[in-house]
Amino acid sequence: MTSLKRVATLVALALTLSTLASAQKKPLDEEYRDIAGRLLGAALVDQDGWNKLSYLTTRIGNRLSGSANLERAVQWFADRMKADGLENVKLQPVKVPHWVRGRESAKMVEPYEKNLNMLGLGSSIATPAGGITASAVVVGSFTELEALGASKVKGKIVVYDVEWKGYGQTNVYRTTGAARAAKLGAVASIVRSMTGSSLYTPHTGNQNYEAGVTPIPAAALTVEETGMIRRLVEGGQDVQIHLEMEAKMLPDADSANVMAEITGREKPDEVVVLGGHIDSWDVGQGAHDDGGGIVAAWQAVTLMKQLGLRPRRTVRVVGWTNEENGARGGAAYRTGLGDNAKKHVAAIEMDGGAERPVGFGFSIEGVEPNTPAHDAARLKLQQIAKLLEAIGSNSIGNGGGGTDIEPLASAGVPLMSLQTTGEHYFDWHHTNADTLDKVNPQDLRKCIATLAVMAYVLADMPDTLH
Amino acid sequence: MTSLKRVATLVALALTLSTLASAQKKPLDEEYRDIAGRLLGAALVDQDGWNKLSYLTTRIGNRLSGSANLERAVQWFADRMKADGLENVKLQPVKVPHWVRGRESAKMVEPYEKNLNMLGLGSSIATPAGGITASAVVVGSFTELEALGASKVKGKIVVYDVEWKGYGQTNVYRTTGAARAAKLGAVASIVRSMTGSSLYTPHTGNQNYEAGVTPIPAAALTVEETGMIRRLVEGGQDVQIHLEMEAKMLPDADSANVMAEITGREKPDEVVVLGGHIDSWDVGQGAHDDGGGIVAAWQAVTLMKQLGLRPRRTVRVVGWTNEENGARGGAAYRTGLGDNAKKHVAAIEMDGGAERPVGFGFSIEGVEPNTPAHDAARLKLQQIAKLLEAIGSNSIGNGGGGTDIEPLASAGVPLMSLQTTGEHYFDWHHTNADTLDKVNPQDLRKCIATLAVMAYVLADMPDTLH
Repeated sequence: MTSLKRVATLVALALTLSTLASAQKKPLDEEYRDIAGRLLGAALVDQDGWNKLSYLTTRIGNRLSGSANLERAVQWFADRMKADGLENVKLQPVKVPHWVRGRESAKMVEPYEKNLNMLGLGSSIATPAGGITASAVVVGSFTELEALGASKVKGKIVVYDVEWKGYGQTNVYRTTGAARAAKLGAVASIVRSMTGSSLYTPHTGNQNYEAGVTPIPAAALTVEETGMIRRLVEGGQDVQIHLEMEAKMLPDADSANVMAEITGREKPDEVVVLGGHIDSWDVGQGAHDDGGGIVAAWQAVTLMKQLGLRPRRTVRVVGWTNEENGARGGAAYRTGLGDNAKKHVAAIEMDGGAERPVGFGFSIEGVEPNTPAHDAARLKLQQIAKLLEAIGSNSIGNGGGGTDIEPLASAGVPLMSLQTTGEHYFDWHHTNADTLDKVNPQDLRKCIATLAVMAYVLADMPDTLH
Repeated sequence: MTSLKRVATLVALALTLSTLASAQKKPLDEEYRDIAGRLLGAALVDQDGWNKLSYLTTRIGNRLSGSANLERAVQWFADRMKADGLENVKLQPVKVPHWVRGRESAKMVEPYEKNLNMLGLGSSIATPAGGITASAVVVGSFTELEALGASKVKGKIVVYDVEWKGYGQTNVYRTTGAARAAKLGAVASIVRSMTGSSLYTPHTGNQNYEAGVTPIPAAALTVEETGMIRRLVEGGQDVQIHLEMEAKMLPDADSANVMAEITGREKPDEVVVLGGHIDSWDVGQGAHDDGGGIVAAWQAVTLMKQLGLRPRRTVRVVGWTNEENGARGGAAYRTGLGDNAKKHVAAIEMDGGAERPVGFGFSIEGVEPNTPAHDAARLKLQQIAKLLEAIGSNSIGNGGGGTDIEPLASAGVPLMSLQTTGEHYFDWHHTNADTLDKVNPQDLRKCIATLAVMAYVLADMPDTLH
């Protein structure tokens, strides 16, 4: 053979060997068993995550956009992330809506006097000074509302006593109930709190007016008292409600996303981003929503750092701001990335509470389930998830996402959400009962472990998901 | 044989036959199968009990001693019992304590400002006008309190953040916490609410001062906020609480026990009494405590009447007043009976909520379990309870009683309490969440059925229990 032929032969041989090696590559769970063991071990005895969540909830408290508490939280995150030795700790400035609740109260004045336990809904306007008093019209659905029509709704307070069928299905009454009632001439809108379980506990949350429709005040009452009002009305009583709210929207306030990294050792410009949101509603402590989420993500990255692990790609933890009433943090993060969004190989959000994790949902825009590309990505995730079998967080389902990472979808970034048992999350969600005592420290440890293993392997594995 | 001898022989024969008949007497469940079936059938499709409870909770509302609501309830009971065709409907006048809550609030003022969700405890005194502000001392037990001693407690607000170990074991902190703290010079006493499950829900209830100890204001906070205060104090913070209460005890008010009967067909002076209490705390609707109890007892007797059943002995339903903060109704009932108390063959109270019934506890003063007399009574109750097997309320346990029937114990009256699964009762107990929506209509029907069968057979069976 000539030298040239020899070279060609060697090249062909090398290519063949390379292909063989690729074909014989170990499954991800085998490849990462040792590292996963170190992350799991560290997470399952971790104390620092709990201490961080305790400080956030107990010393700082709740954190609505525009509040001093939120900005204290942002600064504290940045300081503590630096203290943890995380890299490139940065604040990304974001202008956020600044809604303030002000004083608010509701009272039934007929057929007898009774204070009603209420929470105004986010973005609601105020009542006129001195409040509104009007008769209640109770409906169980939009269909019932429309059937009544303007003649029976005009001048009334619409009370949506809507059966809880899960957040996804029922939440539309909170988000659009006021707009729908206003169209028919109602003077205020009250929604039964979004929950299947109540101990006289009102739930707040955002609502949206409709362009061209005169806004009306919007509030939530407890399951107990919307039911009482319905029974009184069904019994032929004229139920009159007095509602007073000082709620107002101030000019946008300054806030920030906070982020920190472990820079990738080989491909630092490729990024696995994980996080949750720093802001919360202005009630309770935002412990499950979303203190547990952002702290678990942060602690997952902190443990990688403490173990001296530096994955091939960059792992970035982000605490997004303003998830609850504007989603400006997630939007700003996406805008800030520009074309680099495409270099995000995965985005993971934990924003469903810190109950016991069961796995992840995932989705890739334009890649439908039950296609070869989707199946290939799922197979990789399932291999990684095998490392989580012992703690039971190894389910891989469809439909991952999250308010803060959704803007990355159109750049083709695979979106993932940590999923939990979700047993009690909506008992606490957006209430004064979303407090640290509701978080089980062992569940939090499992969330940290689950995020750490998944994010590390995604950042380090030779290929990407998609 | 002489005539005399003949007569003697016949008498002996008659006695023998009578003894045989007695020995061969059918077990109670066989004897009463048909009648029990009619009562069960009527109760399990009953609507009227639910409608009564709905009216009581929705149209009348809560019913603290001294309130207009309680007297409305008493009068409504009497009127409706007459309308039901019950006999001897009577009000028995009772003077009751008249405690009023007035305005009240609590706020944490250091290390940051936060409103605290509170309920003053029954019988508490007011704070001085303008309130009290003092540092919190947090204890988890009386042992911890005593270990601190007067030097660390004097001038402070004692916060009992006591782990829930069930009502029987934990309740002593509510009932005596203020007195114990006052002895060491505390200026106010706060107890973690008596519950194992909270959604930011404070629980009220009575407390008792100690003779010779200067009383101090006493309140309950939520599980969420006593935990927050404890964590802040553990973290080295000086937690200062501002407490304002207008509570006061007015002169005794007029109230009444309400009672009605089906007069016995053979032994009208022998009585099976069953009931619950009409009064409630001044929060929520007193739906489980004890609306469900008194309505179930009432409806059980109403169904007997509707079915045309008139037992051998009198069945009497009593709605006792003032169970919650004085027990004057039960005392007055006993006093009113005088020597006739001995003619009560059984007293049944339902005051543990209207969850699914599982059976009865019973006790007879001076008759210890595992003695022949106790075993004989238990055997009879178990025979009756066999008629309740299909609805699962056939357990017969030791330890029956109830605040309102306890005064009958010393007259040798067998005391019985309806027992339920008790799954959530203490989630709702003494809170704004004790409302009709927490009552399962099918459970209420089963309570009515269980009381009806038990009370009827006890009133009709040839022998008595004891």
